[in-house]
Amino acid sequence: MPFANTPDLAEMDRQSLFHPLTSIADHLRDGPAIYAHAEGALITDDQGRELLDMGAGLWCVNVGYGRTELADAASQAMKQLSFQHLFGSAASEPSIRLADRLLNLFREKANAPQMARVFFGTSGSDANDTAVKMVRYYNNLRGRPAKKKIISRIGSYHGVTLASGSLTGIESYHKAFDLPLSGVLHTSCPHHYAFAQAGESEADFCSRMVADLEALIVREGADSIAAFIAEPVMGTGGVLLPPAGYFEKVQALLDQHDILLIVDEVITGFGRTGHWFGTGAYQLRPDIVSLAKGLTSAYFPLSASIVSQRMWSVFEAASPTVGTFMHGFTYSGHPVGCAVALANLDLMERESLVENAACLGPYLLDALQTRLGDNPYVGDIRGIGLMVGVEFIADRATRTPFAAHQAPHRIVARHAKAAGVLTRALPFGHVNSFSPPLSITRAQIDRGVEAYARALDSARPELDALLGV
Amino acid sequence: MPFANTPDLAEMDRQSLFHPLTSIADHLRDGPAIYAHAEGALITDDQGRELLDMGAGLWCVNVGYGRTELADAASQAMKQLSFQHLFGSAASEPSIRLADRLLNLFREKANAPQMARVFFGTSGSDANDTAVKMVRYYNNLRGRPAKKKIISRIGSYHGVTLASGSLTGIESYHKAFDLPLSGVLHTSCPHHYAFAQAGESEADFCSRMVADLEALIVREGADSIAAFIAEPVMGTGGVLLPPAGYFEKVQALLDQHDILLIVDEVITGFGRTGHWFGTGAYQLRPDIVSLAKGLTSAYFPLSASIVSQRMWSVFEAASPTVGTFMHGFTYSGHPVGCAVALANLDLMERESLVENAACLGPYLLDALQTRLGDNPYVGDIRGIGLMVGVEFIADRATRTPFAAHQAPHRIVARHAKAAGVLTRALPFGHVNSFSPPLSITRAQIDRGVEAYARALDSARPELDALLGV
Repeated sequence: MPFANTPDLAEMDRQSLFHPLTSIADHLRDGPAIYAHAEGALITDDQGRELLDMGAGLWCVNVGYGRTELADAASQAMKQLSFQHLFGSAASEPSIRLADRLLNLFREKANAPQMARVFFGTSGSDANDTAVKMVRYYNNLRGRPAKKKIISRIGSYHGVTLASGSLTGIESYHKAFDLPLSGVLHTSCPHHYAFAQAGESEADFCSRMVADLEALIVREGADSIAAFIAEPVMGTGGVLLPPAGYFEKVQALLDQHDILLIVDEVITGFGRTGHWFGTGAYQLRPDIVSLAKGLTSAYFPLSASIVSQRMWSVFEAASPTVGTFMHGFTYSGHPVGCAVALANLDLMERESLVENAACLGPYLLDALQTRLGDNPYVGDIRGIGLMVGVEFIADRATRTPFAAHQAPHRIVARHAKAAGVLTRALPFGHVNSFSPPLSITRAQIDRGVEAYARALDSARPELDALLGV
Repeated sequence: MPFANTPDLAEMDRQSLFHPLTSIADHLRDGPAIYAHAEGALITDDQGRELLDMGAGLWCVNVGYGRTELADAASQAMKQLSFQHLFGSAASEPSIRLADRLLNLFREKANAPQMARVFFGTSGSDANDTAVKMVRYYNNLRGRPAKKKIISRIGSYHGVTLASGSLTGIESYHKAFDLPLSGVLHTSCPHHYAFAQAGESEADFCSRMVADLEALIVREGADSIAAFIAEPVMGTGGVLLPPAGYFEKVQALLDQHDILLIVDEVITGFGRTGHWFGTGAYQLRPDIVSLAKGLTSAYFPLSASIVSQRMWSVFEAASPTVGTFMHGFTYSGHPVGCAVALANLDLMERESLVENAACLGPYLLDALQTRLGDNPYVGDIRGIGLMVGVEFIADRATRTPFAAHQAPHRIVARHAKAAGVLTRALPFGHVNSFSPPLSITRAQIDRGVEAYARALDSARPELDALLGV
């Protein structure tokens, strides 16, 4: 086999890199799109073409690209203490300060005084994998070894490890990987626009979703159900907002059956919704919270799992007999990542980025609704804060979706990129998402929406063709 | 619940941080050991006390602490492109260059021309979790949906996610987490010193280990076994070297039964054994290789999975029909991590650190054997490169180990720390490990061995007491 030995980066990529979430066939045919530089909400490719990143990478670059404050924090931390694990009670100052700050920030901003301790990892996937292990540990220590199943929801996204990928409720992530693992169940997707029955009100739809969950709990037996996991707003599933009253009813049901609540704030955390945390926005009462992405604005891989006092008390009480807590990653609480996260929180606070998201989110939503609302293929435009979804539909009047194998949202995203705007074409339903850096300006939003609207016009013939029009 | 609001870092830690791999009870009683600064092989705690880190963190700081070259590479990369994912064929120059360099380095140094593509993650745990998913994907695409079980080994360490923790063959990692998951099997541990029968030669022991594996394959049915996973040298299990001829026989067996070989090089990769890779040292022919730790010397969380041409060919051929490869992490191929890894490889090469490990490894081993060999509680001292284990035993003549609940290695590690040397007390058997930065000097080794020997003497009364002497 010849070595890839070429000065051509694109060819080097084809011959060496196994791209995640990519079609191998498409990639070998078309090659990579190489990005070279980014600042604020703007990213420049290797041809010198500047694009407006309305996705903030993968919902993650909350403070915007190229912040020297974070690069300086990383560099300084690396020179001082380039690595320190937390095993066997070892620690570093940044890991301690971040745990303390995060815990108090979450308690205060999410109105969640019950949260007790912070466990660190490197990704949202490992945080949710950790959540599954903690739930098992908790019920084993409580002497309830049969209470282990976890209920997730169709349309949810919780990661890609075998365990977190099982929690994910999107079939394409399961296919060919033999997921979900046994012990993970998925209840119905509370997305009113797509899944309501003809004429069903949001209130009736909400009641039906909760009834579905209750029926599942009863069918499986509450004694076998340990936890329910939910994103406050489903992100990858299509920016799916819960119907009014949904979480209040769900939480009453969980309380009734002694079922823990895991809140996946990997996307919603750190200002994305215009609130510091989705937990606060929806008055959730979690036992475990998974955080990642915005925690460092993606400058350094870091995740955090905050656990509640009721779980921690069980862990603490059992510790003398059960011994060492045998879970943890080499990079749990990496001192450089924690220093970057602290600097990131400084920026978020100093520049009032959560407030900016709360202010510009409705502006973005309104601009998209105004500019696209009349397009016959745009069915629904919804969002909270700087997290907005545009859902495409074949027939607005009857709410008939495009066929499952069709991809109108991919067509539009391709045209949008050609027009200078990056949006994401999501893998569930037919949705483009907008989740720009929280530091985006009003002028950039105007420019982005205008370019996207033109892209939708230029995509029109291809969308017509999907329907044989 | 009161907020932790204290200037005392140790108290802040107790009130906020959930430490990995730590006894909660011990931690709440004793508080954290806080480290403040590190350079080369020396780490300084918050009291200003300098220690020689004979563990290189967790076998990971291969180029030593505080290298400004890596801090500068991180800072520059962050300023230029602080984040870029690789989804949907997107790419960045560092991710492409690292994939190419890694692939060619591994092909050349490990004599493994069959390796075809590089997939990135952030930890050894996620790399092994990815390996499990790739193995499932491979046999599903080949139309062998029943061929899915994975055989690991007792004593092995492969991570802590539900899937990688299942591969781990150390019971304490399973207990209370309901692991291993179904479909993971563990064959016997090929550690001659502890597990040979009375008078059994290494050759006979090796044959028995291979016979155990063959019996397991036959019992389960080769049609149900997809892969075998192994560390070239078991690290966390106790620096367990394979008996002579072991891997040659094992690989013949795997070939015979169409079973893939996953080589976990998370610890052994990047010079630890005095070879660039354990794969080359033991003439392995892997289908998947997991890399992490030394890849960036732990300055940035990064892992890599290299897959073979025979797997890649199946993935590529099936791609047009199966569609997008639906696996990948937000931080797969992080441009900053890849830039740090490239700078790390530059350092490794420029300073001949693999050669240094090859040279100083035997020196360390000899020094330990000379200085400790006569101690009645030191049963075995073995190693390869800068990866050495000291195994404690209650009775040398009869090779009677200490009781399972006793921890002579923890006692000695505590005394060693008091004497200024960090070693690890491993969680399988009774072993202290030595795995210093590859940049360690001969003088530092002398100093470390001398201090450790004195620590062993000072621990003597406590070791005697374990046996009632």
